[in-house]
Amino acid sequence: MATERALANAARRLLGDRRLLIATNRGPVTFTTSADGALRPRRGSGGLVTALGRVGHHVPVTWIAAALSEGDRRAAAEPRLIDRALPDSEIRLRFASVDRHAFDLAYNVIANPLLWFLQHQMWDLPEQPVIDAATVRAWERGYRVVNHAFADAVLSQSRRDAEPRIMLHDYHLYLAAAAIRRRRPGAVLSHFTHIPWPPSSLWQTISPGIRTEIMSGLAANDVVGFQTKRYAHNYLRSAESFLPGARVNYRARTVTLEDGHVAHVRHYPISIDVDSTRKVATSRAALRRADELLAVTADQVIVRVDRMEPSKNIIRGFLAFEHLLQRNPRLRGRVTMLAFLVPSRTNLREYGDYARKVLDVVQRINARFGRAGYEHIRIFYENDYAQALAGLSMADVVLVNPLIDGMNLVAKEAVVVSERDAVLVLSETAGAFDQLASGVLPVAPADVVGTAEAIARGLAMPPAERAQRMARLRAVVEREEIRWWLRRQLDDLAKVRERRG
Amino acid sequence: MATERALANAARRLLGDRRLLIATNRGPVTFTTSADGALRPRRGSGGLVTALGRVGHHVPVTWIAAALSEGDRRAAAEPRLIDRALPDSEIRLRFASVDRHAFDLAYNVIANPLLWFLQHQMWDLPEQPVIDAATVRAWERGYRVVNHAFADAVLSQSRRDAEPRIMLHDYHLYLAAAAIRRRRPGAVLSHFTHIPWPPSSLWQTISPGIRTEIMSGLAANDVVGFQTKRYAHNYLRSAESFLPGARVNYRARTVTLEDGHVAHVRHYPISIDVDSTRKVATSRAALRRADELLAVTADQVIVRVDRMEPSKNIIRGFLAFEHLLQRNPRLRGRVTMLAFLVPSRTNLREYGDYARKVLDVVQRINARFGRAGYEHIRIFYENDYAQALAGLSMADVVLVNPLIDGMNLVAKEAVVVSERDAVLVLSETAGAFDQLASGVLPVAPADVVGTAEAIARGLAMPPAERAQRMARLRAVVEREEIRWWLRRQLDDLAKVRERRG
Repeated sequence: MATERALANAARRLLGDRRLLIATNRGPVTFTTSADGALRPRRGSGGLVTALGRVGHHVPVTWIAAALSEGDRRAAAEPRLIDRALPDSEIRLRFASVDRHAFDLAYNVIANPLLWFLQHQMWDLPEQPVIDAATVRAWERGYRVVNHAFADAVLSQSRRDAEPRIMLHDYHLYLAAAAIRRRRPGAVLSHFTHIPWPPSSLWQTISPGIRTEIMSGLAANDVVGFQTKRYAHNYLRSAESFLPGARVNYRARTVTLEDGHVAHVRHYPISIDVDSTRKVATSRAALRRADELLAVTADQVIVRVDRMEPSKNIIRGFLAFEHLLQRNPRLRGRVTMLAFLVPSRTNLREYGDYARKVLDVVQRINARFGRAGYEHIRIFYENDYAQALAGLSMADVVLVNPLIDGMNLVAKEAVVVSERDAVLVLSETAGAFDQLASGVLPVAPADVVGTAEAIARGLAMPPAERAQRMARLRAVVEREEIRWWLRRQLDDLAKVRERRG
Repeated sequence: MATERALANAARRLLGDRRLLIATNRGPVTFTTSADGALRPRRGSGGLVTALGRVGHHVPVTWIAAALSEGDRRAAAEPRLIDRALPDSEIRLRFASVDRHAFDLAYNVIANPLLWFLQHQMWDLPEQPVIDAATVRAWERGYRVVNHAFADAVLSQSRRDAEPRIMLHDYHLYLAAAAIRRRRPGAVLSHFTHIPWPPSSLWQTISPGIRTEIMSGLAANDVVGFQTKRYAHNYLRSAESFLPGARVNYRARTVTLEDGHVAHVRHYPISIDVDSTRKVATSRAALRRADELLAVTADQVIVRVDRMEPSKNIIRGFLAFEHLLQRNPRLRGRVTMLAFLVPSRTNLREYGDYARKVLDVVQRINARFGRAGYEHIRIFYENDYAQALAGLSMADVVLVNPLIDGMNLVAKEAVVVSERDAVLVLSETAGAFDQLASGVLPVAPADVVGTAEAIARGLAMPPAERAQRMARLRAVVEREEIRWWLRRQLDDLAKVRERRG
């Protein structure tokens, strides 16, 4: 296959006989100690881990992740045990040893409450965030420490290599490249931010010290990658605003630091592994789920799949469905909305509050339009991937209306598993919109009326138009899948490396 | 005086023997019916009205405002009565007759809850806003109707003029220019947005219909003015994103519509009338207030003056002061913070909640560090302009830390009335920051620790440095005052007019 060959060529060109070093906060496997004292591996979930997990099928990878559990810390001492946990790929997993308290500060004070909320524009800005003494301490003794620990771990995996090839990932590791660069100037470094990069006016609200360190930490890479052109542009603007002495070239998309280092700012929309997604969707488990779902749905089916998370804009999605049922009495009893909501960060107060509000709205709407034995909205509040794909495969309309989203892989999964030429109703603010615009019905996330209208249009769309749109979407998603995402980054890194001589 | 002459020249060049037409939602005077049935005028307050009120001292103006009160509606029929209410200027006030229900929808559903909150980035986006049927209705039957009523009123003031010179103002009137242009293609039109213009990612969250109508309404002007370069750039980006067929030139700062019309996008930082501000600050009323304030303050004085409004970031300002007192016990009892907070939109729930939280924080901090008979924070929750200027004149440090602010005239007032060479601690996110950066101590609005450090630095700053900084600030504010703001707009409009031939 051409895709496979192109990827292999890119990997060879960049790596030679090296392994690619990947660093992420969370690894593909985590270990728990079972009752008999043995370590048991458990596969991780989540978009990042799933996407990167596929990389190891195509390229030899050493993957460095934080030891999150007590089991991970024990496993860290037994590399062979770890390797056995990932038998089907070329991934060699290594745990970065991170001080537990520092990790807690980095994760539970900085990365999730501060950076995730900032980058998803989820703050109620008049009151949040408050950069107080505790935040500054968590930055200095948590986030920085964790990033240095990752730098150590990465460097210790490439001791004899003056030019290791390193890909860092996401908002937990904004400072690692600068720490690596100081000690291994020849390193070939990239960072990829999986979540949105907001306009500089958002960064402007937080401490100059923190934001400058983030901008310069990223600029220490050779390639700074984002999901979309808009996010890459936003980064260029924020580097220009907050990095003293840096020169930004918008046409060449580069940031040149005072010491002459050049960071290339690019966008690489991440995707899914099309074949393996289809494999799960046609698995026996998924088919059984599909039968069960058919038994509870009416003629037409609207489906959403999301983590239970405020940025996913779940409430307004249900309000749009309510508006639809209210305006179109003839749809009542004839259309079912299936919502597969995966529990997420259930220990965070904001998330718990949000989940409660979602469930309340659903109850209210079901009570308002319900008939004996029939509910318009069915919630599946659990983590069952095969079931979610089964739902997507039978959808007439798939609703993906996040407030804002780095990419949103559900939109792409929906395209490859659909059996009814589902109409995709997609937020313009999802990263995926840039690739899929030509085939979807666009909506603005706060626009409940517009979302209801788009769903109505989707439900009423003639088969020929559905098929046409789906064909366009399929072509894009099949072409620009996970290997394409990886290959383009390897190519760009190889170019940077070769230009450097 | 050169300034005066330059302004008169600009006015003559643009206007000839015409009057300048200005349209704003709220006028400089509003009328109430007194017990004996007579109409009594009352001067308005607020930055926009104060700033534009000065325009009438320099240029003949017909000012069109909405009839807000029953008294205004009665006064509308008696132009001579209105003219007598503004004896000291060349302003001729006329009321646009606006349907009361439409006005209510425009003002209380669209302009304030939707546009003001959007443009000040004050939404808790996961839940607000919800563009529901009521919003769409208020847009169609309120905001649009009011803008058309303004267009009618403006055109009826310039019946025989094929090229009236019209300045529209602020977020209540985004659609008026398009309505005027359709009926009077030769009109010379400008619009000035007094509040921030947020990045396009914020506009992206609301209905495509609404945002496109706003972008194209503005683009119907010849000159589209904003407070800062950043806001002007943000408008260019949003026009590019949301105006189908428009061509944006970032270098020339123009938006060219499909029909060939060119809108010039500029920034004109608004300012104060320096002389009249000083006059109030040295008035007998102000001097008496200053004496009263001296009696309740310790050695050093920190002052803030703000409408009681979430975008002013009042809570974090007090938290910064608390952090300062906690870290520097020797400051306790030696420094007083005077907060002059003007009641604002007290009928809005969000504002009431915010005011309560502000007062709670103050009470808590005063209780924590209070001593017998001494309070570290003194709140003046009333509208007393002379008193506020008296406070600013005696300040050692002036804290202006809005979350985001179109301009912020308090920062400029503080500069011209200061008698102690006050150190100005200023948010980078206030529009005024662009002009004042060289003399202030900058802070990021969410950065409580950094704000406390800036205040501490201000309190400890040696007199020579204070004087130097203040001299720089004074030079800017005295040069770039309200006539400068007006003159540059008149010049640009005249150029547009002449180029058109």
